Amino acid sequence: MTVQELSDLGQQLRVDSVRAADAAGSGHPTSSMSAADLMAVLLARHLHYDFDRPEHPGNDRFILSKGHASPLLYSAYKAAGAISDPELLTFRKAGSRLEGHPTPRLPWVEVATGSLGQGLPIGVGEALAGKRLDHVDYRVWVLCGDSELAEGSVWEAAETAGHENLDHLTLIADINRLGQRGPTRHGHDLDAYARRFAAFGWHTIEIDGHDVDAIDVAFTEAASTAGQPTVILARTLKGKGVAAVEDQEGWHGKPLGNAAEAVEELGGERDLRVSVQPPPAVRALHVVREGHLDLPAYERGGKVATRNAYGEALTALGTARGDVVALDGEVGDSTRTQFFAKEHPERYFELYIAEQQLVAAAVGMAARGWKPYAGTFAAFLTRAHDFIRMAAASGADINLVGSHAGVAIGEDGPSQMGLEDLSMMRAVHGSTVLYPCDANQTAHLVAELADRPGIGYLRTSRGETPVIYGPGETFPIGGSKVLRSGADDRLTIVAAGVTVPEALSAADSLAIEGISARVIDLYSVKPVDRNTLRTAADETGCLLTVEDHHEEGGIGDAVLDAFTDGRPVPRLIRLAVRTMPGSATSAEQMHAAGIDAEAIAASARLLVEHAVVS
Amino acid sequence: MTVQELSDLGQQLRVDSVRAADAAGSGHPTSSMSAADLMAVLLARHLHYDFDRPEHPGNDRFILSKGHASPLLYSAYKAAGAISDPELLTFRKAGSRLEGHPTPRLPWVEVATGSLGQGLPIGVGEALAGKRLDHVDYRVWVLCGDSELAEGSVWEAAETAGHENLDHLTLIADINRLGQRGPTRHGHDLDAYARRFAAFGWHTIEIDGHDVDAIDVAFTEAASTAGQPTVILARTLKGKGVAAVEDQEGWHGKPLGNAAEAVEELGGERDLRVSVQPPPAVRALHVVREGHLDLPAYERGGKVATRNAYGEALTALGTARGDVVALDGEVGDSTRTQFFAKEHPERYFELYIAEQQLVAAAVGMAARGWKPYAGTFAAFLTRAHDFIRMAAASGADINLVGSHAGVAIGEDGPSQMGLEDLSMMRAVHGSTVLYPCDANQTAHLVAELADRPGIGYLRTSRGETPVIYGPGETFPIGGSKVLRSGADDRLTIVAAGVTVPEALSAADSLAIEGISARVIDLYSVKPVDRNTLRTAADETGCLLTVEDHHEEGGIGDAVLDAFTDGRPVPRLIRLAVRTMPGSATSAEQMHAAGIDAEAIAASARLLVEHAVVS
Repeated sequence: MTVQELSDLGQQLRVDSVRAADAAGSGHPTSSMSAADLMAVLLARHLHYDFDRPEHPGNDRFILSKGHASPLLYSAYKAAGAISDPELLTFRKAGSRLEGHPTPRLPWVEVATGSLGQGLPIGVGEALAGKRLDHVDYRVWVLCGDSELAEGSVWEAAETAGHENLDHLTLIADINRLGQRGPTRHGHDLDAYARRFAAFGWHTIEIDGHDVDAIDVAFTEAASTAGQPTVILARTLKGKGVAAVEDQEGWHGKPLGNAAEAVEELGGERDLRVSVQPPPAVRALHVVREGHLDLPAYERGGKVATRNAYGEALTALGTARGDVVALDGEVGDSTRTQFFAKEHPERYFELYIAEQQLVAAAVGMAARGWKPYAGTFAAFLTRAHDFIRMAAASGADINLVGSHAGVAIGEDGPSQMGLEDLSMMRAVHGSTVLYPCDANQTAHLVAELADRPGIGYLRTSRGETPVIYGPGETFPIGGSKVLRSGADDRLTIVAAGVTVPEALSAADSLAIEGISARVIDLYSVKPVDRNTLRTAADETGCLLTVEDHHEEGGIGDAVLDAFTDGRPVPRLIRLAVRTMPGSATSAEQMHAAGIDAEAIAASARLLVEHAVVS
Repeated sequence: MTVQELSDLGQQLRVDSVRAADAAGSGHPTSSMSAADLMAVLLARHLHYDFDRPEHPGNDRFILSKGHASPLLYSAYKAAGAISDPELLTFRKAGSRLEGHPTPRLPWVEVATGSLGQGLPIGVGEALAGKRLDHVDYRVWVLCGDSELAEGSVWEAAETAGHENLDHLTLIADINRLGQRGPTRHGHDLDAYARRFAAFGWHTIEIDGHDVDAIDVAFTEAASTAGQPTVILARTLKGKGVAAVEDQEGWHGKPLGNAAEAVEELGGERDLRVSVQPPPAVRALHVVREGHLDLPAYERGGKVATRNAYGEALTALGTARGDVVALDGEVGDSTRTQFFAKEHPERYFELYIAEQQLVAAAVGMAARGWKPYAGTFAAFLTRAHDFIRMAAASGADINLVGSHAGVAIGEDGPSQMGLEDLSMMRAVHGSTVLYPCDANQTAHLVAELADRPGIGYLRTSRGETPVIYGPGETFPIGGSKVLRSGADDRLTIVAAGVTVPEALSAADSLAIEGISARVIDLYSVKPVDRNTLRTAADETGCLLTVEDHHEEGGIGDAVLDAFTDGRPVPRLIRLAVRTMPGSATSAEQMHAAGIDAEAIAASARLLVEHAVVS
């Protein structure tokens, strides 16, 4: 395309953005218009992409981090011939693939965006996959806005990309001066952004983002810069090309007042078509070896921390399968991810203490076909909550592992205790939440998660717990284990993780008193084993749940999921952590929280006597 | 103190750190030893603090962001005469105030730390309070480690502090080269950190962190630097002073092997006492005006968005009370926090798109006695989950406001929809969770939250909802409203927020069919109105909950809280968002999710027929 054609293409993208938002009656045309020339040049001259084969391993990756500028993305798809004009005008309507913010319902969108500051860290994950796993030279282009550069996650990514010398990663920053509410912190001071990125080890280029020649030169320079990622800081105007809105406040997220006039001002409708350059022929290297999975086996009667079993099982899984990767938030010695690092250093990633980047890197690698397991303390996964939520919208298949769950960690105190993690992970759309109580169960569940779609979560414990299952037992997701059962059971105790041994001990005490208690190990917290719970309710009449987690959103609530369809609900008592813990030993903590064997037995007595606790 | 005495004090802090961890059998002595000289000079020469009056408004603030170095903090308290040696040796024991990571159980600790990267953003909040609210010249000193500089939240804070010219804020960075797992990304490359902070507008000083003279000069320079915050980058050695551990990997979070030998190597026990300089006499300015609260009033029968009512009520509250402050994450036009900004600009803070800093600033201001209301989209509060969790450990009294809740926002799609926020906020220790359905209720609840201790949460809606209550009605926290009730009610529909009008409409339809339904507006999601729910269960036999939120951890679970104490549980059906929404109108979204009047009525019919749904 000639320079004039590039400019015309930019205008066409503006026109189509205006038209799409006008047809929808909502959307963000002005945020699209500022970046239209950047997108035009990228599409026509620099992107290598086969729209017919979005899964092509040589395709460049493009992430629209400023997801609200979706009209621009969809207009580009139209220019590339991937969607039709009538489809463009279905923007934001029920049933359309063209959502308000891009999601993978479109085959060319790998990750959902719309929560700002996520595109770059996910792009880092894709770039790491290209450079260190697939050894393929695709470029990762991330287009972001200026407002989102205030997000800490962007600087976690800037640090990671600089440190990892991700020279195939380019950030295109559309510095249009205006955020949603008004002017950004730095306005059009491109130098302010350049100083920051340069300090983090990036190559920086400052341009007029409406000068297609300058844009073209900048993209070429980015592609030829070795050893460093590049940020192109483009000075642009929000609403560029339509005087009524150009560089004006108060036009964020609104269709233009008069779309027809605006289209005319922009030179009218066009139908330029772009032949996007094809990707080179390449072969991605993550052939899934179908090797034998030799999971670690633990002898019954011993004591092993489930975090250790996790590390050992993940290492074995990595040996059996070449597509498994492990990510660490600088606590791999504690989570035991480091076992994997020793055996498979080429598939191990240290993201340091940056949990948003940790999860984002997993999302990016999953988008490239890898099977990531990302681990940190359960408590610190809360740092990445928004990324986990969005990963579900992306349909990402990632596994998260949270160690040091609950008050049972002991002396370190509340800052290190995961007490909200089950709640957080259960509320994620389509998630799987597992909480093993022993080492063999852990090892089995690590393997079960490998091919599980969606967001998987494995909760591990710091201290040693008794090995109560044999190495040969299986633990299907959605199942449970009935550990004690008899015809005269008068209640059912439902436990998971560290409360399973406590429940067994309580059942033993109760048996001596003549109270027979069923005990269920609810290792699959979501999906929950409804049938077993319903049978237990029918046969024993009442339930007692006990968990090392706050009372909201955890195992007690998971159990009730089996009874919220209109059927009779059993009487129940829920034991959980209701106090703010301090420092104490593990046993003291569990006693103080009222989740140890003694507390279970006491509540069980009340329950079978039909007494009300509160 | 002389230079020699300062060095001796540093050694004493090391000795006491080693002794405390040895007595505990756990803890982080080596992380304490690296920063001991920094702490000694700060305590003896630069901190202004009255340990007998921790609430003194002129006190400098000190935050130990590397909370695991708590032995150093407690050893400093001992040197200042605030705690005794026997108390020091209670470190990490049950009942001790000296927890593994510092919490406000100690009167000199304003905020809990231990989740890394939080000290600086909270310090920014305290510095903003000093500079822009109290107009008091106290200094805020934050001591952090090097590993935590990888956290994005640190760079959100660096950006904010630089932009706000917080020259009374000093970050002391203990660059000891070793994180928990091994070497940090930048090791002893102080310049790498200096470049980054300088780019964000900070004054930077690089020193040998074991040279007490150099430290003294640096602190003086920091205190005399105008217009910029200062970071002191101190090259230190982890485990400094004990050859067996000094600068060695593998000693994070462990007591030394032989404490007695280490103490001897450090020069033996000492009992130096420090006379910490007193704060100047100052008067904080946030006298709570007891003005008349003139809440906005809305006419019944109209339609008003609850987010609008929030903005108007907060503005009125700010007029009545001089201690109310509002914080915005660059969406104040959407959350309507901007109404407050217009009326009370001196108590309004724009934190831009940096939700961790948003919540941290609120925590810092609350620590200085202000009443913060911090608002953004409900979905984006997930970004600050770890800060909210830690705010509860800090005992902070802050209010968070999440707008654009649920699928009812319409076309923008899942990235913008708060569908996990009730779950997240309910699971926070001691939290209050409110979800109003109309404008007058919203206004009342905004005022109710002002003096509520702990973490408050108000969920608001984007679209207009009918005003169903009169302006005079009251809505106590922990209460609910019974909107329909009769002697022959056959079920109870429990709704909140946008599902209240749907529930009323469903009840009307059902009434025509001869099914009388009670309707409860559960505006107080936590604490929940157990008595009303139990009465409804007793009188109507079964419950139907309906919420614009994922099914896990929200209103359905909150309702069940009333029945988990062993009492009989009513049959129930829970309606919630179970699908991944796309773009559609608000009404289409609620219909697709199965939470509109039609879905409620259909489920109600099943429930009264004793049918099981699943």
